[in-house]
Amino acid sequence: MAPSKAVVAHLVVLLLLVPLLSLLPFSSHALTQDLCVANRLLPDTPSGYPCKPKGLVSSDDFYSDALARPGPVIAPFNTSLASAAVKQLPGLNGLGISATRVDVQPGGVVPMHTHPEASELIFLLEGTLFAGFISAETNKAYVKILKKGDLYVFPQGLLHFQFNTGNTTATAIAAYSNQNPGLQIAVYALFGNTLTVETVNKTTFVTKEEVMRLKDLFGQSSVPS
Amino acid sequence: MAPSKAVVAHLVVLLLLVPLLSLLPFSSHALTQDLCVANRLLPDTPSGYPCKPKGLVSSDDFYSDALARPGPVIAPFNTSLASAAVKQLPGLNGLGISATRVDVQPGGVVPMHTHPEASELIFLLEGTLFAGFISAETNKAYVKILKKGDLYVFPQGLLHFQFNTGNTTATAIAAYSNQNPGLQIAVYALFGNTLTVETVNKTTFVTKEEVMRLKDLFGQSSVPS
Amino acid sequence: MAPSKAVVAHLVVLLLLVPLLSLLPFSSHALTQDLCVANRLLPDTPSGYPCKPKGLVSSDDFYSDALARPGPVIAPFNTSLASAAVKQLPGLNGLGISATRVDVQPGGVVPMHTHPEASELIFLLEGTLFAGFISAETNKAYVKILKKGDLYVFPQGLLHFQFNTGNTTATAIAAYSNQNPGLQIAVYALFGNTLTVETVNKTTFVTKEEVMRLKDLFGQSSVPS
Amino acid sequence: MAPSKAVVAHLVVLLLLVPLLSLLPFSSHALTQDLCVANRLLPDTPSGYPCKPKGLVSSDDFYSDALARPGPVIAPFNTSLASAAVKQLPGLNGLGISATRVDVQPGGVVPMHTHPEASELIFLLEGTLFAGFISAETNKAYVKILKKGDLYVFPQGLLHFQFNTGNTTATAIAAYSNQNPGLQIAVYALFGNTLTVETVNKTTFVTKEEVMRLKDLFGQSSVPS
Amino acid sequence: MAPSKAVVAHLVVLLLLVPLLSLLPFSSHALTQDLCVANRLLPDTPSGYPCKPKGLVSSDDFYSDALARPGPVIAPFNTSLASAAVKQLPGLNGLGISATRVDVQPGGVVPMHTHPEASELIFLLEGTLFAGFISAETNKAYVKILKKGDLYVFPQGLLHFQFNTGNTTATAIAAYSNQNPGLQIAVYALFGNTLTVETVNKTTFVTKEEVMRLKDLFGQSSVPS
Amino acid sequence: MAPSKAVVAHLVVLLLLVPLLSLLPFSSHALTQDLCVANRLLPDTPSGYPCKPKGLVSSDDFYSDALARPGPVIAPFNTSLASAAVKQLPGLNGLGISATRVDVQPGGVVPMHTHPEASELIFLLEGTLFAGFISAETNKAYVKILKKGDLYVFPQGLLHFQFNTGNTTATAIAAYSNQNPGLQIAVYALFGNTLTVETVNKTTFVTKEEVMRLKDLFGQSSVPS
Repeated sequence: MAPSKAVVAHLVVLLLLVPLLSLLPFSSHALTQDLCVANRLLPDTPSGYPCKPKGLVSSDDFYSDALARPGPVIAPFNTSLASAAVKQLPGLNGLGISATRVDVQPGGVVPMHTHPEASELIFLLEGTLFAGFISAETNKAYVKILKKGDLYVFPQGLLHFQFNTGNTTATAIAAYSNQNPGLQIAVYALFGNTLTVETVNKTTFVTKEEVMRLKDLFGQSSVPS
Repeated sequence: MAPSKAVVAHLVVLLLLVPLLSLLPFSSHALTQDLCVANRLLPDTPSGYPCKPKGLVSSDDFYSDALARPGPVIAPFNTSLASAAVKQLPGLNGLGISATRVDVQPGGVVPMHTHPEASELIFLLEGTLFAGFISAETNKAYVKILKKGDLYVFPQGLLHFQFNTGNTTATAIAAYSNQNPGLQIAVYALFGNTLTVETVNKTTFVTKEEVMRLKDLFGQSSVPS
Repeated sequence: MAPSKAVVAHLVVLLLLVPLLSLLPFSSHALTQDLCVANRLLPDTPSGYPCKPKGLVSSDDFYSDALARPGPVIAPFNTSLASAAVKQLPGLNGLGISATRVDVQPGGVVPMHTHPEASELIFLLEGTLFAGFISAETNKAYVKILKKGDLYVFPQGLLHFQFNTGNTTATAIAAYSNQNPGLQIAVYALFGNTLTVETVNKTTFVTKEEVMRLKDLFGQSSVPS
Repeated sequence: MAPSKAVVAHLVVLLLLVPLLSLLPFSSHALTQDLCVANRLLPDTPSGYPCKPKGLVSSDDFYSDALARPGPVIAPFNTSLASAAVKQLPGLNGLGISATRVDVQPGGVVPMHTHPEASELIFLLEGTLFAGFISAETNKAYVKILKKGDLYVFPQGLLHFQFNTGNTTATAIAAYSNQNPGLQIAVYALFGNTLTVETVNKTTFVTKEEVMRLKDLFGQSSVPS
Repeated sequence: MAPSKAVVAHLVVLLLLVPLLSLLPFSSHALTQDLCVANRLLPDTPSGYPCKPKGLVSSDDFYSDALARPGPVIAPFNTSLASAAVKQLPGLNGLGISATRVDVQPGGVVPMHTHPEASELIFLLEGTLFAGFISAETNKAYVKILKKGDLYVFPQGLLHFQFNTGNTTATAIAAYSNQNPGLQIAVYALFGNTLTVETVNKTTFVTKEEVMRLKDLFGQSSVPS
Repeated sequence: MAPSKAVVAHLVVLLLLVPLLSLLPFSSHALTQDLCVANRLLPDTPSGYPCKPKGLVSSDDFYSDALARPGPVIAPFNTSLASAAVKQLPGLNGLGISATRVDVQPGGVVPMHTHPEASELIFLLEGTLFAGFISAETNKAYVKILKKGDLYVFPQGLLHFQFNTGNTTATAIAAYSNQNPGLQIAVYALFGNTLTVETVNKTTFVTKEEVMRLKDLFGQSSVPS
């Protein structure tokens, strides 16, 4: 039987490695899974990134100050987002958890959105937020006014939102049940997409005029990460 | 130590059962997991329903003709939906799969929606559908015109849609990676929910007038199941 | 401590990439998991293939017409199989779903087989099939005659079969709870394997004469994919 | 809205419990998941049995001598099987592991079988076994002669077998990646099932005469548990 | 065949329910899994609690102020703990996430501990903490001084600790990748257990004198929840 | 848009492969998942190693005699450990199971330890062991004296131990619910780590003198693998 593409690919890798490897003394240390820090130079897999070699791992891989300050403001929302997912914090790889910081100015909003890959648990650090999610089964909104120190749960994949009902910036930390929760903001996905006005009108029942207005607002948007 | 509530609850169950059980000869047959048909009289758990006793299981538990005919028409969409999830087909319990039949009349639409708990693989039986989903990361729409015999994939949790671009009813079977995929239709969840016009406007950026128009259209809607 | 093999392998990859990478402007786009289309040039992992770079992904990755026509006929069964698993439809990677089309001629059969990695939900498009599976615990067969539009469930890993009891070709679409369900056909695995007649006789209790007859029939077989 | 069946069912349970509960002092002990010993009086779920109340758990729940002696001999195989799955060892509930002891007499066999829900790792305590499994993809048999102290792996869902090639009883311990691995023995499932001779012939390609002979041998069999 | 225990148990439940159910009008609402709020009156399962009936679910099930204030102080540690796991916040059921608040006084410590079921991501609200975990493979400690706004990761099951190196109380929120992370504090588990001094000495290599001293300190301890 | 780093990396791989690939006839054999033997030259991922090409897989990949003899003695414990995890037995990759052999001399001990990634099921081959684990919730020790042929369960992530109470070597086989269970020995992790005496004292409450004594004993230790 002739060798398959995959066999050849593996042999090529071995051929490239053998000369270099032979120049070097080896330790007997092997990779294991008590730690699997993301090697983001290699392609992702459905379970996460390949592991960085243990010898290159340091405590910096488990540390981040990405949430110490507000992220960049997203203009139409008067809200800033900062993320600490596997991209920013490679030690999260394979661990099923990540976090985001959201700062909502007075009058600001985190508009309707979903996390396709995660549930969310939010903790309010400062201010007041009106928060809620929509049940897929009943369209009932489960809402609550959150004050400093309050927690609220958003189950996986359901549309949810928050907006500031106070006079000061509201700051919250959100934790997710995934190293990379994903974020699909309804106004971006519905109106800032690459579909025509007609297709958006057809699939959202929003009038063409309103779709055009919203495409003008959100058509050049990109999702914060 | 005093017995806990849970201990007491168990003892009560045992007390109630013992007199009846003592009147009956027993087989030694125990429940196992090569089959776990849903007992839908008992409450669901995060992994699915408790198993029906093996002795009460028959081939009918694995059979359904729920997709043999179109489901009821949903008026504003000119589309009918019929479901075969664990509710209709209890043999699916614990197996991570289910199906739906969709019949889209000429001009009809399956509007923007997500399945919070499942990916979808659709197979077109008849007609022509324009189908697509929106990437959460880039807002790019991945679209395709589907003809009889075509397959298309909708990754978990992402907004997607189909509409009929032909002159005859388009019929498709959709399979899902979950015994209960869930269904959150954007127009229902965004406009047919229990939130005020102001809150919907604030969190969707759709004008209040348009929100009111859409609430009139979808305010009494319930999700088909 | 001397660098381990894995460290060296990583450094080699970096050395090879740095000169080329330095010639190119970069976007800041990173791979994420709202989509993980299979890169089948790289080796598979237990959770699926590494992801193709997002910039190379197109809607074709989510589309297939592999089930639009019957697959090749498998002579002794008078049945044809066509597959749409991750190999044919790379957009299925990591999503836990796939499909197959089976066309069974009058008198034809899908003989006893298992899918080691998946449960199955079958939908009959045309004709009549007698379908069933065998409980591992009781050896009871759960069987049903399926007509157009009927669904039947085959729980993960259990032996099951279908055969055509009508006068016209029966066509069905099967969906699986895995991107790659696997297929172990009993007659191939038991009689078309690389074991001796004696070993097959010893482990199946089928007489040596019958084993020889079946080895003649199925000895050169390979599993359709 | 009128209360649903499930609501009523819950209220009934509460009504029955309240009078008894009110007579008793309570500890504040709640169930948690560092331990979830199976309560086998309640129905199984796809993830395992409900947990026994913590106050009723003792070290006996984690202990078994079920593998200290050979199990009952299965006549046609000259092999005895003893199991330690969640049924025999309730402390395994939810933990993804179990074990079996197999004693194969000289000339005895563990015939072709699968575990629908688990991979297997076998360790030979005494004697000599010829062991192998069949790849689903290629029908290639991966075989090995095992001596005392040897390990062999059987991947999930694939047909595998062992037989004694020595003059003394061979004893092995098999561990499984599931609290309840399941066991489907090919001769039982193919020939000892409730299907007619014609159906078995049709779906296995074994002659009717041979099917009848094998049904006589295995028709009254039940799977050991 | 006589009905099994499980069949009888189910029949009993039905018998008890039928008379009450027949008095009531029913909605057609069924339980689904877009929400599965814990019904903590029923026993837990390996995947979480059975779901509360949808009709009894309210937004309070997704809300908690359990982390708005420090929890009770644990004397020897000068640290207080407050939990928001499924026990305190039933809406977390099945969602794979929970949180804890820890307030460490100047000089206080969160001693060496593990979460058997979860990884942890900690966010420092106020003060300064020295935090670290121990690699199982190398015994290397990965440590960091954390200031306000910093994040640190503790991979699943590994021993880790924090202590206050500043002059003010340090407050942190920890998120976990499980609805019920579990908590095994080394000094409690090693010295506050029900084993004899001899057994603890034998299995920890700490001198009997020191074990006795530590048993005096921690022998009556119970794990905060 | 300029190509991203990941795109370039993929193109580089393709450039390197194309010239070699073009010299070779190909079979159409593709990797699938009925087998995924670990290719340990490539980096691990959270779900396990990439698969070795099917054409290079042999029965040796599923076989090991690593547990046929006692492993090396660990001096202070008078115990020897031999492992058969994915590192020693690459056929275990992705299968969720592995094993260890432990030989405990008279007076020897397997000191308090956890497996961060796995539950354990132990089977005693010879001798007598006193075995136990500590509940995280209650600090209660669940203990048992094990004789030849006995089984005992240690739930995931909980501290557990064994010691020999007899006059002969006790030998046991332990199976784990993970291809790589991990091993964190309390005396190594608490006292043989890279932390200062002060930090260990602070986080374990063991006196500095005792910490120093234990660091002398275990400071140069490395975890057996």
